Amino acid sequence: MRMYDIIKKKRDGGELSTEEIAFFIQGVTDGSIPDYQISALCMAIYFKGMSVRETCDLTFAVRDSGDKVDFSSIRGIRVDKHSTGGVGDKTSLVVAPIVASLGVKVAKMSGRGLGHTGGTVDKLEAIEGFRTTLSDADFIRQVNDIGLAIVGQSRQFAPADKKLYALRDVTATVDSMPLIAASIMGKKLAADDDCIVLDVKTGSGSFMKTVDESRALARLMVDIGKNAGKKMKALITNMDRPLGHAIGNSLEVIEAVETLCGRGPEDLTEVCLTLAAHMLSLAGMGTPDEAMALAKRAISDGSALAKLKECVAAQGGDVRLIEDTKNFKKAKYSRDVRSTQSGYIAHADTEAYGLASLALGAGRNTAEDDIDFSAGILLKKKTGDYVEAGETLATLYTDNEALFEGAEARLRAATRMQSGRPEEEPLVYDIVE
Amino acid sequence: MRMYDIIKKKRDGGELSTEEIAFFIQGVTDGSIPDYQISALCMAIYFKGMSVRETCDLTFAVRDSGDKVDFSSIRGIRVDKHSTGGVGDKTSLVVAPIVASLGVKVAKMSGRGLGHTGGTVDKLEAIEGFRTTLSDADFIRQVNDIGLAIVGQSRQFAPADKKLYALRDVTATVDSMPLIAASIMGKKLAADDDCIVLDVKTGSGSFMKTVDESRALARLMVDIGKNAGKKMKALITNMDRPLGHAIGNSLEVIEAVETLCGRGPEDLTEVCLTLAAHMLSLAGMGTPDEAMALAKRAISDGSALAKLKECVAAQGGDVRLIEDTKNFKKAKYSRDVRSTQSGYIAHADTEAYGLASLALGAGRNTAEDDIDFSAGILLKKKTGDYVEAGETLATLYTDNEALFEGAEARLRAATRMQSGRPEEEPLVYDIVE
Repeated sequence: MRMYDIIKKKRDGGELSTEEIAFFIQGVTDGSIPDYQISALCMAIYFKGMSVRETCDLTFAVRDSGDKVDFSSIRGIRVDKHSTGGVGDKTSLVVAPIVASLGVKVAKMSGRGLGHTGGTVDKLEAIEGFRTTLSDADFIRQVNDIGLAIVGQSRQFAPADKKLYALRDVTATVDSMPLIAASIMGKKLAADDDCIVLDVKTGSGSFMKTVDESRALARLMVDIGKNAGKKMKALITNMDRPLGHAIGNSLEVIEAVETLCGRGPEDLTEVCLTLAAHMLSLAGMGTPDEAMALAKRAISDGSALAKLKECVAAQGGDVRLIEDTKNFKKAKYSRDVRSTQSGYIAHADTEAYGLASLALGAGRNTAEDDIDFSAGILLKKKTGDYVEAGETLATLYTDNEALFEGAEARLRAATRMQSGRPEEEPLVYDIVE
Repeated sequence: MRMYDIIKKKRDGGELSTEEIAFFIQGVTDGSIPDYQISALCMAIYFKGMSVRETCDLTFAVRDSGDKVDFSSIRGIRVDKHSTGGVGDKTSLVVAPIVASLGVKVAKMSGRGLGHTGGTVDKLEAIEGFRTTLSDADFIRQVNDIGLAIVGQSRQFAPADKKLYALRDVTATVDSMPLIAASIMGKKLAADDDCIVLDVKTGSGSFMKTVDESRALARLMVDIGKNAGKKMKALITNMDRPLGHAIGNSLEVIEAVETLCGRGPEDLTEVCLTLAAHMLSLAGMGTPDEAMALAKRAISDGSALAKLKECVAAQGGDVRLIEDTKNFKKAKYSRDVRSTQSGYIAHADTEAYGLASLALGAGRNTAEDDIDFSAGILLKKKTGDYVEAGETLATLYTDNEALFEGAEARLRAATRMQSGRPEEEPLVYDIVE
């Protein structure tokens, strides 16, 4: 088999065979296929696409390119959710305890943030002492004991994807539906879950800018998961504005705790409950409506919050922070960004909000950067809200005062005002199953 | 400027600016742009094409990436022809002496053969003693003295093209009209001619498989040349069958000499006279018809053959070989390939004929291979000819008897017979000016 022939076949619109795709991913993984041939094929795939069969084969080859975990010794049904990445997306911190508190196992391996999106592992590390690395035995034992554990991805999951993504990132071949699906699902399927609910974010803060694109990606990923024997569902959710008010690591943990206390922002609460309901339903806890009732009860009776505390304690985190979020270290400096005009917020470029938070020290430009856990943004006004001139739009937090200016400029540039009230957009656009 | 943005712009169908194309070729030349970005852009160009303006910019950037020659000290008008490469194409050996014998200067820098196509320099080296390397001063002096010199391309012509072509060759991005045009014309324009006649070969033995594709490529290259201030013309000629009967270096020189004696095969003679007529006409020697009459006379009065002898003598070659081609060293072995059936030759895969000659030792698989100058094929029957079962289709020549079998198998597989007489195809499809 020759990589040249594979590139040419795809360039000419052909369907690659299972063997050709396996050969390609094997060569990506072991380095035997040079980068220039990999990027040429990615560009040909960008233009010519892939069938569902090809995309499944690609996904499975990516999954099989590295380590896999074996969770068969976890008793009960294992469910996970996966978000395609957004700004201010702290849903995992809310959803995982809800689901686990109702007896469904959550053995979660999460990522770190990069660029404008945050990562669950970084958020958890804002809780002093929280260990995001556990041995396999400890991880499985904790899930069996309390139903929930959340760690970082320390394994060599899907190394082919790491290599592919790095190349796609510099050759303008990221925005290809089959390549995105294979990248997300190749990693996700390397973990050993029974049920997966995908949260496909749509809008200015996410990969997919339109609902139609998101629906197509969701459809593809659900089909891939089913082909791999998983129970699958996908929610298309709104990321045209940040979820909740908090962007930044400890700020988001605080907001997640508030949500578990029943005092969270409406949008965040609704998305979390919907996700939890579908996770529970997939795991056999009744219809989504029935599961929704269970999820609401887990908040109102405090069992979900108790589950988060249990998890934090088990992983060495300081539980007093969860018990009273005022105990979180505050940022040294804060600055209010005030509106210069009156009107409705017509649109906020969510990606730019994420970049503003990054600019305050809350995220990483490169994988080696250190994070300022208390840095970030609290939004006082969001898309659709009316603002008087002089009112605070948002409060910025950082330990480095010099960073305010750049962040404020980004935030202001990202916020568009108008005199009339903008149309309200749904939080959950669609459910793909 | 970032290469990423250039790739993305082209991927999205944008028109690259002159500066962006210059940045790209600069980076290809100095190695600052990694191969994976170059191949991604080539694939994007494959799908999205380039405007004539972009293609001109690309061509000129390729031309300017390396050495250029200065032929201004050559007195008179300098004309050249350039073939896109074919099988059994010995036209340069016929056309250059005709044109030079009529007072138009031919300062020819030719290439070597690779794969199924031959190269003029290799053919000349079949003439014992012929020096294909001359100093600039000697080269220019010879052109001024006798009107004709032919050497190999010893300079660093268009190094960006060398790099680009090597990458395109392994990433299935060769077959892109603007990339082909920029590659051919980038090198051609680095030489310092006043007039260029392009011989765009069409059919199974060439790059371009259809007349329409060839016409489009010819149009593009003629426009590029005019943009560079050259007088341009292009002929679309038939390479669906080999030109003449001889394939292989000394066999082709012998056939060229025969043609200069007025005893050449009809098809080769017609193509050579047509090329010569347009070269002469571009150089100011009247209309193509008038120039054709001059070219015919140069053959009939022996002046063209005399010019070839002069050139061979000036470059150290053994003139006795030209005076009597029986003096060429014969191959040690020959084998007749006989037809197993009666009928008309309906089609011959010319590329396969070239590969059969290569398999006999007449060409190179890699740039380092040695050539058997006397190896090759003499075709006894060509497309359109009637053959009786048992008649000789072709005679194979080689110094290595073991090579017959593979070559014969290739030749047989490449020849398709039928009972009815096939339609005759023109030799010159079109002229683009």
